[in-house]
Amino acid sequence: MSVDSQVKDAHAAWLQIRGWKSAQIVALLESIADALDHAKADLVPVAMEETNLPEARLTGEVGRTTGQLRLMARAVEDRTFLDITIDHADASLTPPRPDLRMKTTSLGVVGVFGASNFPFAFGVAGGDTAAALAAGCAVVIKVNPGHPRVSQMVGEIMIAAALKAGAPAGLISLVEDYDAGMALVEHPLTAAIAFTGSTHGGRALFDAANRREIPIPFYGELGGLNPVFVTRSVASDKAKETAEGFLGSITMGAGQFCTKPGFLIVDGATEINAELATLVSAAPAQKLLNSNIVKLHDKNRDEIAGVPGMSLVAQNPEGGDTKVSVYTISAKDFLKAGEIAKREVFGPTAVVVNCANTDELLRVAESFSGTLTSGIHAIENDPMDLTQLISIVERISGRIVWNQWPTGLAVTWAMQHGGPYPASTNPLFTSVGAKAILRFRRPITYQNFPQSYLSPVLQDGAAELKNARINGKS
Amino acid sequence: MSVDSQVKDAHAAWLQIRGWKSAQIVALLESIADALDHAKADLVPVAMEETNLPEARLTGEVGRTTGQLRLMARAVEDRTFLDITIDHADASLTPPRPDLRMKTTSLGVVGVFGASNFPFAFGVAGGDTAAALAAGCAVVIKVNPGHPRVSQMVGEIMIAAALKAGAPAGLISLVEDYDAGMALVEHPLTAAIAFTGSTHGGRALFDAANRREIPIPFYGELGGLNPVFVTRSVASDKAKETAEGFLGSITMGAGQFCTKPGFLIVDGATEINAELATLVSAAPAQKLLNSNIVKLHDKNRDEIAGVPGMSLVAQNPEGGDTKVSVYTISAKDFLKAGEIAKREVFGPTAVVVNCANTDELLRVAESFSGTLTSGIHAIENDPMDLTQLISIVERISGRIVWNQWPTGLAVTWAMQHGGPYPASTNPLFTSVGAKAILRFRRPITYQNFPQSYLSPVLQDGAAELKNARINGKS
Repeated sequence: MSVDSQVKDAHAAWLQIRGWKSAQIVALLESIADALDHAKADLVPVAMEETNLPEARLTGEVGRTTGQLRLMARAVEDRTFLDITIDHADASLTPPRPDLRMKTTSLGVVGVFGASNFPFAFGVAGGDTAAALAAGCAVVIKVNPGHPRVSQMVGEIMIAAALKAGAPAGLISLVEDYDAGMALVEHPLTAAIAFTGSTHGGRALFDAANRREIPIPFYGELGGLNPVFVTRSVASDKAKETAEGFLGSITMGAGQFCTKPGFLIVDGATEINAELATLVSAAPAQKLLNSNIVKLHDKNRDEIAGVPGMSLVAQNPEGGDTKVSVYTISAKDFLKAGEIAKREVFGPTAVVVNCANTDELLRVAESFSGTLTSGIHAIENDPMDLTQLISIVERISGRIVWNQWPTGLAVTWAMQHGGPYPASTNPLFTSVGAKAILRFRRPITYQNFPQSYLSPVLQDGAAELKNARINGKS
Repeated sequence: MSVDSQVKDAHAAWLQIRGWKSAQIVALLESIADALDHAKADLVPVAMEETNLPEARLTGEVGRTTGQLRLMARAVEDRTFLDITIDHADASLTPPRPDLRMKTTSLGVVGVFGASNFPFAFGVAGGDTAAALAAGCAVVIKVNPGHPRVSQMVGEIMIAAALKAGAPAGLISLVEDYDAGMALVEHPLTAAIAFTGSTHGGRALFDAANRREIPIPFYGELGGLNPVFVTRSVASDKAKETAEGFLGSITMGAGQFCTKPGFLIVDGATEINAELATLVSAAPAQKLLNSNIVKLHDKNRDEIAGVPGMSLVAQNPEGGDTKVSVYTISAKDFLKAGEIAKREVFGPTAVVVNCANTDELLRVAESFSGTLTSGIHAIENDPMDLTQLISIVERISGRIVWNQWPTGLAVTWAMQHGGPYPASTNPLFTSVGAKAILRFRRPITYQNFPQSYLSPVLQDGAAELKNARINGKS
């Protein structure tokens, strides 16, 4: 079937579900979650073959994926995403105010581009799909070429589960290759795009979405350098603990997380580098997703290694798989190198920036641009005044992590996964957590409508008005 | 001073006000509103000279403008825009959940492009400026070439009032010409753009904002055709009243409102057209903003007149000023003509589309794309089943108006001024009303932060937590 027919069918299916009650959307999400949980034992081995990721991780990831779908079901029940806001008519005002009732409405067909590194949680049935369906949208999903077989399996399970829940045919469908993905972005009936992947690939699609005669919202999560800053107190008092945590974080998922802390910026890194030298040498080699990723990783690692002033802290012993590599550079050389030193390396390579004092640490912080996360490792009542550092990282980050590591992402209400470009192409939204649904709803106001023609959720006495803002009061 | 210095100064000023308490932002907005109210008698005559708009309208518009600033002050006090969301740490979950605290933060320097048709309410101190300042941003404002003198006066008053309220120099500044406007969009320290104006001009700046190495949010309100649909019952029972209302709406502000109903789509238009013939002939000629606008209006009106099947209903008598022109066309010819018939004419020209039946009316409705508003004129328990019409206009409109006219815009909480492109370049937001502030804030999450390093509004026991969502419950 052509992309054109798929998008048209998705649009027709969307028109059919626009009138659905929230309970029907909830049932759809739960039907998909149940079916995926049920198929876990079939899915995991295929994903293992396609991604080199271990069984425990993938099994956990299926659970996370179905958890995301169920969190979205709870968010649909919660109804906050309707953002109901009412101003009653008031003839005493100048000019007189008409009755105004605002709620959000679904956008239409959402094109979803899944990532390579999470075949389930950011894949065909991942967070973007869950959020778009929860918003009442139809989805056409571009399969990631890194795991086509398991993606097709998930797609089939999802489509069957949707039909079982009463969804119209065409509400969910998959497309396969790059051209089909581009056609999806350019199709007149596509209403929005959600993308997780590389800055390069994401930017090309972002540009296509904005080039359209009618541009559409593009929500791209393109990654981050995720700098973590370490004060002198922690660098000396907790050198070993910090080195262990850092190594654990940069090798989680073989370093293939978008939240991997690529840069550890330390006020006095000597002890941490010494600890890392020992730890990294003993670390197991890492199996990356596929040979393309290995090639890209090695190329980026070599370019990092070639930055003037960069030296190797340690690499684990040669083996068939990808080595863990930690480099170090002085703050002076790092600042002199500029953007070439700030390369996102997808895989188990990271850099320790060694600062002579807090002033250098702050200047290094100032040199970073948008990132998904940043971290601060400090002791309470740290001798370093942290006000300025917090202020700097607030300006570049979607999430700031204190004395923990950024990898591992709670899927919840207060999560922000996004941030200034290139962390995200739209820093006003999160792609993870209950609020991800908001990307696919837009507000609409009904002026002077008779009750009988209003959507039930906006009618006087509707249960949905309980938490609404009415006449400016919430 | 160069645009580069202005944006840099604005950025520096923004850094200074990031730590401001909400009461300081409130004082800033109120200081500007008071100063403008105080200067009303000086401002209005200059605006009259520059725009040809009448005194009463401009005097009212200053009041609306200061009302907008004061509504924004109330929205700042309200604090909803902080969107505080907290999930407490929970070690019993798998994986354990860290403490997560989310709030929004200001974007930085906002470039504002004011409109020609509202020298005050959408001008230098208009809604976009008020929203950006309320959000805690700095503004660099591109003056509209249609009213440069009154814009400079408003700018000076605003800047003086801001300094009086303790704002740092550079928080507010103006730029003048097209090149400066483009430089503002392209400046690396500009964080977002708000624009109100033509589709052509807005699209050029939208493209520039997206072409940047680091793209920035662009909020453009580019106008609308604002179709109004009239059922057969209204067309026959209330022909005169409808014709009067329509004429009043298309000549309000001499037809130079972005919410002007350019198309009246009537199931059986004979009687309404007959009424319009009489009314339009007796209407006074209209004084447009300036000679460029007159030229553009006449060109667009002539192209409308040249659409195959289009005929003149009436024009008021020749005079020095611009004539009011109402045309009519059958639904069949309108549908055959396609996009050339769907031209936004800025000025007192409009089209009545005459439908033979409800089916034609629905097909005409389907042919429109994104618009700020649409209208439905019907009687309660109308013989026409309105379900389908409402469903169609919901998909294209930011606001749907029942038995009223779209011109005149309440500045309140439940207003949605925006909609699918080209109504707006970002349909998820409104440019008018209290929620316009949300365009200039982005979420940020603090993970595992000690109380003492958290922003006061996120600390346990803060007053701001009263309406927050905590552990998924609001």
